[in-house]
Amino acid sequence: MNRSQLLAEIKKKRTYLCVGLDTDPEKIPAHLRNTPDPVFEFNKQIIDATQDICVAYKPNIAFYEALGPKGWESLQRTLEYIPEDHFTIADAKRGDIGNTSTMYARAFFEQMDFDAITVAPYMGADSVTPFLAFENRVVILLAHTSNPGSSDFQLLRSSDGHTLYEEVIRKSQAWGTVENLMYVVGATRADKIAEIRKLAPNHFFLVPGVGAQGGDLRDVSRQGLTPDCGLLVNSARAIIYASSDKDFAQAARNEALRTSQEMGQYLAAFAGW
Amino acid sequence: MNRSQLLAEIKKKRTYLCVGLDTDPEKIPAHLRNTPDPVFEFNKQIIDATQDICVAYKPNIAFYEALGPKGWESLQRTLEYIPEDHFTIADAKRGDIGNTSTMYARAFFEQMDFDAITVAPYMGADSVTPFLAFENRVVILLAHTSNPGSSDFQLLRSSDGHTLYEEVIRKSQAWGTVENLMYVVGATRADKIAEIRKLAPNHFFLVPGVGAQGGDLRDVSRQGLTPDCGLLVNSARAIIYASSDKDFAQAARNEALRTSQEMGQYLAAFAGW
Repeated sequence: MNRSQLLAEIKKKRTYLCVGLDTDPEKIPAHLRNTPDPVFEFNKQIIDATQDICVAYKPNIAFYEALGPKGWESLQRTLEYIPEDHFTIADAKRGDIGNTSTMYARAFFEQMDFDAITVAPYMGADSVTPFLAFENRVVILLAHTSNPGSSDFQLLRSSDGHTLYEEVIRKSQAWGTVENLMYVVGATRADKIAEIRKLAPNHFFLVPGVGAQGGDLRDVSRQGLTPDCGLLVNSARAIIYASSDKDFAQAARNEALRTSQEMGQYLAAFAGW
Repeated sequence: MNRSQLLAEIKKKRTYLCVGLDTDPEKIPAHLRNTPDPVFEFNKQIIDATQDICVAYKPNIAFYEALGPKGWESLQRTLEYIPEDHFTIADAKRGDIGNTSTMYARAFFEQMDFDAITVAPYMGADSVTPFLAFENRVVILLAHTSNPGSSDFQLLRSSDGHTLYEEVIRKSQAWGTVENLMYVVGATRADKIAEIRKLAPNHFFLVPGVGAQGGDLRDVSRQGLTPDCGLLVNSARAIIYASSDKDFAQAARNEALRTSQEMGQYLAAFAGW
């Protein structure tokens, strides 16, 4: 799925919601735990309950990797189950020297069939460009993340006045295009989103940190929305763990619907749709 | 395996060689390709041929991840085959928000049983400390890497005169100890190793980039060795692909032996052993 197809889905559904599949076996409702693949069964029911009111799914790869080979099988099944008209993001935060980044790209774009992957910029151009070499795939580069530690290095200011995350956004725009490069911009720093939007007026931002991490959806939307939407806002725990009981899928739908309807209002108010 | 056990092995074998298991199915000799698990079979023979002349093995996780669930099985088998008196490093370059880093730590320290993992620092303290919370495990934090792109961000100089990689080394020393924290310092910048050694006089450095990437072992050793050795130098392609034929394991041994004997001389010359 490419950017214009994603945009068409956003327009059709009037939402820019990405549902984060951070599926923790310890949080799966008890009645699913004796199924052959509880992680997949949980994800399947979440997908069934939310697919008409979101445009993207973002499995958090750590949660699958922690389960060993069977976790990768659950991930593969989940990915295959996601309808084709959804944008799929491997939240993997990979990045290594060139030949190794190519291997990671093969893992997520060939061995699996993700549309996009999150990538960490610390190692520079040749750690990122191998992912960009894959046609019709998207790199979502970490810029300013949502966690407390984001201020440790990302806010370091260079002698010419730019912070590290600004340098990441500046330099990386030469490596990719608005089609194949997006940025991770945390919702917990909504004050920064307007600044970052100036640096990258046309790139999509993937915004985690709304919900359990405390980011404010209205602020994020007001500062980040563009005439082409330009936002994917991820919510994971607040949706998928809305209930820990048999009604978890319905509760997830209720929370996703509430969020999506709020997004519909912001698209009207701030993007003029 | 902890730092003092690693040091005892280094003293016993008079080498600080780490063999990188960047095992690419396309480069495995033809006669192994029809075995049930060619990646493991290749690794097994490399381990058999080198285990008495190296102190550590470092599988590059991307190469296994690119093969899907069966790649993780090959990795698990390889890890179980490595003798207990070797230090095992998952070269994974992970790092994410706190609860996600904990999941990655579980993947490599519990689901698998690695002694150490490489971690990317971009997301700051709470992306690194969850790995440090595991007893008797080691974090090897990216500082100054060996690839060309390392100059894109790692060399950015802040207004108070420090580069990003220096900031990473300074700040992170408050998160861990010389026991559970090491640094990745690329061999292709041997001129930097002496500077970095001043910042972290007692931490071990994992040094990739000797061999195929062009770093010079003598320079690295002269600048990086301490009275407690303080170095693990990784060589992957130059050893494991020394021959692409039936003699690959013997050729790997010859190359590893040559490197280790050189290291023995440097231990005498620069560490006073």
